[in-house]
Amino acid sequence: MKKYTVGVDVGGTNVKFGLIDPAGVVLHRNRLVTKSYGSDKNKLIKALADGVLGLIAASGISKAQVAGVGIGLPGLVNPKDGLVIFLPNIPGWRNVPLKSRLEKHSGLPVYLENDVNLITLGEWGFGAGCGCRNMIGMTLGTGVGAGLILDGKLYRGEGFAAGELGHMPINFEGPRCNCGSFACFETFVGNGRLQQRAADIFQRADIALEDVFQLAKSGNAKALRFWQETGETIGTGLIGAVNLLNPTHIVIGGGVSRSHQFLFPAIRRTIKARAMAVQGRMVKIVRARLGDDAGIIGAQILVNQEQQAK
Amino acid sequence: MKKYTVGVDVGGTNVKFGLIDPAGVVLHRNRLVTKSYGSDKNKLIKALADGVLGLIAASGISKAQVAGVGIGLPGLVNPKDGLVIFLPNIPGWRNVPLKSRLEKHSGLPVYLENDVNLITLGEWGFGAGCGCRNMIGMTLGTGVGAGLILDGKLYRGEGFAAGELGHMPINFEGPRCNCGSFACFETFVGNGRLQQRAADIFQRADIALEDVFQLAKSGNAKALRFWQETGETIGTGLIGAVNLLNPTHIVIGGGVSRSHQFLFPAIRRTIKARAMAVQGRMVKIVRARLGDDAGIIGAQILVNQEQQAK
Repeated sequence: MKKYTVGVDVGGTNVKFGLIDPAGVVLHRNRLVTKSYGSDKNKLIKALADGVLGLIAASGISKAQVAGVGIGLPGLVNPKDGLVIFLPNIPGWRNVPLKSRLEKHSGLPVYLENDVNLITLGEWGFGAGCGCRNMIGMTLGTGVGAGLILDGKLYRGEGFAAGELGHMPINFEGPRCNCGSFACFETFVGNGRLQQRAADIFQRADIALEDVFQLAKSGNAKALRFWQETGETIGTGLIGAVNLLNPTHIVIGGGVSRSHQFLFPAIRRTIKARAMAVQGRMVKIVRARLGDDAGIIGAQILVNQEQQAK
Repeated sequence: MKKYTVGVDVGGTNVKFGLIDPAGVVLHRNRLVTKSYGSDKNKLIKALADGVLGLIAASGISKAQVAGVGIGLPGLVNPKDGLVIFLPNIPGWRNVPLKSRLEKHSGLPVYLENDVNLITLGEWGFGAGCGCRNMIGMTLGTGVGAGLILDGKLYRGEGFAAGELGHMPINFEGPRCNCGSFACFETFVGNGRLQQRAADIFQRADIALEDVFQLAKSGNAKALRFWQETGETIGTGLIGAVNLLNPTHIVIGGGVSRSHQFLFPAIRRTIKARAMAVQGRMVKIVRARLGDDAGIIGAQILVNQEQQAK
């Protein structure tokens, strides 16, 4: 019997649900607004279970046809014990046994994962990293996050906290970072900093990064230089991980990656110029392909891998 | 029958041979001078095979009691195909099928590995990293090298070039590096730079790092500050790898680690202050325990793992 997966991508704003077939195709979707549950985590847990069951019912399949549920969460997750340790942007979540709670509510096997790891799994299995053995999945947004596929498996680190590419220091001096340190990669290329740089360059406090993208497309020299310099800084921030891990693919997603035509050549040039010979020659910088679906599609791989590992 | 391993540690100056028992104890030793073979790699290969067989004969055991030979080499090695790709400090070595050549000469199974990876395996299995799942083994010397144990296995990277911790850039500006880049971790804490700093501080061109260590032991304030600042820079260079990989142990060896009593507190303090909460709390900075034997002892683990993987 062909088995489906339910993917759930929990964000600070929305929760997205998707029914995924074995080929990684999203067949049905649903969503709910995270904030309408405030800090009442029991209500949100119930809504997650209802969302999963509602999606299955609306899809016209039976629960028996669903292999399991994979959930991506924006924070620190212990997938082994099925615990949500801490979610910085959703109040009230500390050491929540979400796996067992949802399994009870839904009657389905549930697997938890950090959201960036789930996105990385999706891009690895069905997106831009298809089939490779060693890959970094990076998202450029307010923060800079990453997931690591090493020797064909998601690498989580001892405390499930690996992949913090955005918090590698890349200079001796630099802006304070939310993590408590300073001069982290993220402080130079996170959206906040990019927007501030754009505002300075164009002398317009309200300019959006999308505007700078459109300006670059129309050939504006300042905008082109903005993306080129941003690419050089991103490239600089990636050299350390490239030399340390020797991956074949760095898959870059997130809003800023829309400007890939201007950004990626500068990233590639910087890495070619400064990474070590073998590492620099082997690594490809590619754009994420699955967009907002990466997380729910990644759930298919998570559920598969966890059930095979048993 | 109890099986032994022969470990071979090929350096630019010497080749060390050791007969290792299953508990990781070196029972017998031998060595030869690498340079006496010049760039004649066939002679050196023959001498390696003779060294292995001579050690076995001198130990009074039979070849049947030897599980295999593990060889650490100072350069880029392809352990899968048994090739030495390139040795920067031993002339004439490019794409040498050393595994098959030595197996023919010795009649024993032979496994190749990069020397720092072999040291890391030794420290992991029988030294300071004993039993942990996620560890970085770092050697501080002329260069800064590292091996990575991730999820309980040596991680080699796609082109067997992973672990280049010493070539992670840690500042936007800095000295030119041998690797072709600049501002690499190694350019700030490699022996050359440390000696130059010591010479500047003490106004003595011929001062050795060992002298600065002795001065620190006698309470010399300049020497104490030298090691503290060096520790802070080493800590700064490690934060990126700690945040990215979330290991429990960083095992530090090499000449400079002799000054651990002055160096390590500053490394630990810097990491505590700037690494992310989970990563910083979990990581221990420990001194390598096996000294010059780490590589030949690591051969025991390499041979074991490769034969189990079959």
